[in-house]
Amino acid sequence: MITRLSTLFLRTLREDPADAEVPSHKLLVRAGYIRRVAPGVYSWLPLGLKAFRAVENVVREEMDRIGAQELLFPALLPREPYETTDRWTEYGDALLRLKDRKGNDMLLGPTHEEMFALTVKDLYNSYKDFPVTLYQIQTKYRDEERPRAGILRGREFTMKDSYSFDMTDEGLDESYAKHREAYQRIFDRLGVDYAICHATSGAMGGSASEEFLAVSDNGEDTFVRATEGDYAANVEAVVTPHPAEREVEGLPEMTVHETPDAATMDTLVEWARSAGVTVDGRDVELTDTLKCLVVKVTEPGGEPELTGVLLPGDREADMKRLEAALEPAEVELAGEEDFAANPFLVKGYVGPVGLAANGVRVLADPRVVRGTTWITGADAPQRHAVGVVCGRDFTPDGYVEAAEIREGDPAPEGHGTLTLERGIEIGHIFQLGRKYTEAFDVKILDENGKRVVPTMGSYGIGVSRLLAVLAEQRHDEKGLNWPVSVAPYPVHVVAANKDPEAVEAAGRLAEKLSAAGLDVLFDDRKKVSPGVKFKDAELLGMPFIAILGRGFAEGHVELRERGGETRNVPVDSAVEDILAAVEEAR
Amino acid sequence: MITRLSTLFLRTLREDPADAEVPSHKLLVRAGYIRRVAPGVYSWLPLGLKAFRAVENVVREEMDRIGAQELLFPALLPREPYETTDRWTEYGDALLRLKDRKGNDMLLGPTHEEMFALTVKDLYNSYKDFPVTLYQIQTKYRDEERPRAGILRGREFTMKDSYSFDMTDEGLDESYAKHREAYQRIFDRLGVDYAICHATSGAMGGSASEEFLAVSDNGEDTFVRATEGDYAANVEAVVTPHPAEREVEGLPEMTVHETPDAATMDTLVEWARSAGVTVDGRDVELTDTLKCLVVKVTEPGGEPELTGVLLPGDREADMKRLEAALEPAEVELAGEEDFAANPFLVKGYVGPVGLAANGVRVLADPRVVRGTTWITGADAPQRHAVGVVCGRDFTPDGYVEAAEIREGDPAPEGHGTLTLERGIEIGHIFQLGRKYTEAFDVKILDENGKRVVPTMGSYGIGVSRLLAVLAEQRHDEKGLNWPVSVAPYPVHVVAANKDPEAVEAAGRLAEKLSAAGLDVLFDDRKKVSPGVKFKDAELLGMPFIAILGRGFAEGHVELRERGGETRNVPVDSAVEDILAAVEEAR
Repeated sequence: MITRLSTLFLRTLREDPADAEVPSHKLLVRAGYIRRVAPGVYSWLPLGLKAFRAVENVVREEMDRIGAQELLFPALLPREPYETTDRWTEYGDALLRLKDRKGNDMLLGPTHEEMFALTVKDLYNSYKDFPVTLYQIQTKYRDEERPRAGILRGREFTMKDSYSFDMTDEGLDESYAKHREAYQRIFDRLGVDYAICHATSGAMGGSASEEFLAVSDNGEDTFVRATEGDYAANVEAVVTPHPAEREVEGLPEMTVHETPDAATMDTLVEWARSAGVTVDGRDVELTDTLKCLVVKVTEPGGEPELTGVLLPGDREADMKRLEAALEPAEVELAGEEDFAANPFLVKGYVGPVGLAANGVRVLADPRVVRGTTWITGADAPQRHAVGVVCGRDFTPDGYVEAAEIREGDPAPEGHGTLTLERGIEIGHIFQLGRKYTEAFDVKILDENGKRVVPTMGSYGIGVSRLLAVLAEQRHDEKGLNWPVSVAPYPVHVVAANKDPEAVEAAGRLAEKLSAAGLDVLFDDRKKVSPGVKFKDAELLGMPFIAILGRGFAEGHVELRERGGETRNVPVDSAVEDILAAVEEAR
Repeated sequence: MITRLSTLFLRTLREDPADAEVPSHKLLVRAGYIRRVAPGVYSWLPLGLKAFRAVENVVREEMDRIGAQELLFPALLPREPYETTDRWTEYGDALLRLKDRKGNDMLLGPTHEEMFALTVKDLYNSYKDFPVTLYQIQTKYRDEERPRAGILRGREFTMKDSYSFDMTDEGLDESYAKHREAYQRIFDRLGVDYAICHATSGAMGGSASEEFLAVSDNGEDTFVRATEGDYAANVEAVVTPHPAEREVEGLPEMTVHETPDAATMDTLVEWARSAGVTVDGRDVELTDTLKCLVVKVTEPGGEPELTGVLLPGDREADMKRLEAALEPAEVELAGEEDFAANPFLVKGYVGPVGLAANGVRVLADPRVVRGTTWITGADAPQRHAVGVVCGRDFTPDGYVEAAEIREGDPAPEGHGTLTLERGIEIGHIFQLGRKYTEAFDVKILDENGKRVVPTMGSYGIGVSRLLAVLAEQRHDEKGLNWPVSVAPYPVHVVAANKDPEAVEAAGRLAEKLSAAGLDVLFDDRKKVSPGVKFKDAELLGMPFIAILGRGFAEGHVELRERGGETRNVPVDSAVEDILAAVEEAR
């Protein structure tokens, strides 16, 4: 199929749109792939739609390959099922709600767990029907507070969402593993640079959870990767290894000291060094001090509970990590009123010994294990305790991930160190468990005739977002650069020579490539200069640009690989050479 | 590709859904093609989605063939453009409106004229870019007062809508003609039984307008067809021919008579016959009497104007035809207060002579031409006038289509008579004109450097509705019956014999058909009886059902054409025979 630029509904722009901040947004608008209709709401113009369908088809093929069955739910949904699962309210302002002419509450689906669970309940009732995996590629709605970056975070967008239903947890593990592989194949085929990150399961409940993050400086999510091996994780999901425990017997006794000028961890270290304090016979480091953060933790439906969180003195607290670790409980820092109400909390000098003595729960960083020795607050103004030994002078009630992650931290599983990177979420796979099947009382007869609740996996891919991600990862200053798997057209033929023979040869080349099964974009515009044509070709970003220009007189077609090499191929073998180049790039 | 019934996400139902009235609704639900989510809102289950995609692809191919370019607008739209064209209010309760988190008014698009016009304005500015035709296959929303018949009239549905933009009216004629042919090809390929009906252009303004109606007893629209030739029209669009005019000179004088017992047209005829009145020397017929309807006509922004509408006495008024004829004016019958305010209006005895004498506008049925003679009310109680001649005793101010259409009426263009049929609108093509381009001030430089407003055509196909239409037209008491062009699978292979060799042969047949490029539905279920399998196959409605059953021992595959003949084909040549049968049915 040949599309001619002389008739294609397209207008490229030389200027960036005023509201665009990231390259993908700028380029997709400038290259005429998308057009803004309202904040976070875009149309797909012909080139954009073609690229979008290409991504959609890769996703569909790989979902079909793992035996997932496609269906399609409406976007307009009744309130009741979302009321049953509390999501009608939990979604807050992100949910687009409306009333129909009869006054019924309806919503625009942000995700369809409810509908899938209800449909399976409706159709299936015996273990013989399981496992089953269903998916849709469908338009979703979320009223983002700050829709940004074009189609990177829109309010109307396309997702592939799938759900597995299994009779057993082992079955769910299998369904999950299949999805994981399918996602790897999808992102590999699309040429995305991504990491599979351990994720916390979050508010959704459930167990295993991994996010697929596309690596991008413009990503909203920070994640870590190991310098060796495949380990990657959301910052919230990084697990700090416990060091080896030590015998506490024989360690020096705890002593309390006046520390008038040691209000910060750094000045505390200075004091210790000047006072000649040593740890294991060496000078004190920041890592020998122990911070004690006082927070209030509120379990759902419960009362706030005062909690001490112990952190090595060289680390800041990362409240997002702490919150993720304690979810679904809510966490806030203790305020003046809490200190006032609990006089044993001496601000700046809180220590684990005093907390324990006053019955306050103490959660420690995983580095605080039995036999480690610390300098801590001594629960009195301008006093610190030295030689405070974990497992002897205090014992944590539990462990918690509350410390910041730093570039260079040791990676789990012993694979080098961690680097911090930015990413864009493109997929999420997730062992959802029985939350929704229980909510809707989905009961299935098992082999023994017992009615059991099946367990669900929930898996999503941001289909429209992937276009923005690829634009983000693969552009240069001149424009877009699509992989063959996504490009609206693998080849862009440019007639860049006014010689009628050259123009005719360009047309013939386009025809022959089309006859050979390639979709061809043909710049046949008559009154447009070669320079403008080249600029447009670079902006539009087809992987191969075949130019019939100055070299035509010498029998050459100039074949440019977008963002790669340029070479001359003979006019006579141009079709075969281009087909071979496209094939190789697939 | 083979889909096995043992794993397909499907549950057929023996009972009709409680809310279903028409066969397509009952069968599509029972056969597991669609599932209700809310009134007028349905999901597509796997079989339904496959059939839906098949229809979508036929539509897409034929749109592409006429050079229309596909793009995709969002469903969630801002209020402003719809405010500009007044449709924000004109749509009334049928428009689904909502507010986003910032309080902005938004809507779910019922149709996208505004967005297309704005996009063309945005991208194009020179005559060189025209003509251009754009289309989308997209989810639309209309909050129907009475969503009915499953996907026949839903609140969320899929339409193909396209819009042509031309610099000249002649260009629009061409774009319109291309669409007309594309629509014929689409409906022909899908095997729909349809008529192309002249339509009134209605509230949208514009000129040429035709509706494609699928013939169906369960249709909501009545239309007429000529017994000879292709003429078909919406009832509103039927044009009544004028009879030949006659000389008025020499016709008998008008006389006024006391008619105490002639309150109805029938008793008026009785009176005339008993009084010896004749017309052209023959007895009076009902067709010699003339009704005079008094209505009020209100032009947009104007005051109600009293109007007399003359109709042959044998015809009832068809208010919908009258309204369509006078659109955009609104029409209502004169009420008691109008008669009270205008004493010359004698209820039951209003005649054209009195109306004209009192300056009331008179619109006549096209049969009321110069030289026709009538018996009418004489504008006095219990009095009628005989020998009232059009063109002598009164002259209509204009003509109007207000009389009912009856089976057997002469067809226009002299092609036999009219039959009345019911239909379902599946497509509409329409010369929209400059309403939207003017509203958005779309101005394009023509060849002379003058800025002109391009003219639009608007063309729609109800894509999801077509599935219901095909189900409606092609079912029998046993179930659905898809054409090959739409069937989710052209062939349904049934293993209906427990002999392991037969089961294996069925599997092999499915494999071979699949390898030959056919999508195969394979009923491989183990504990299901052949009877149930046959019932399901008939309900699901694939065009060919290949059964490995009792005949297998004799080397036969039973090949049933759904709704057609059954024959035995040898196991050895079954693949070729089935491929040939499918090919022939394409």
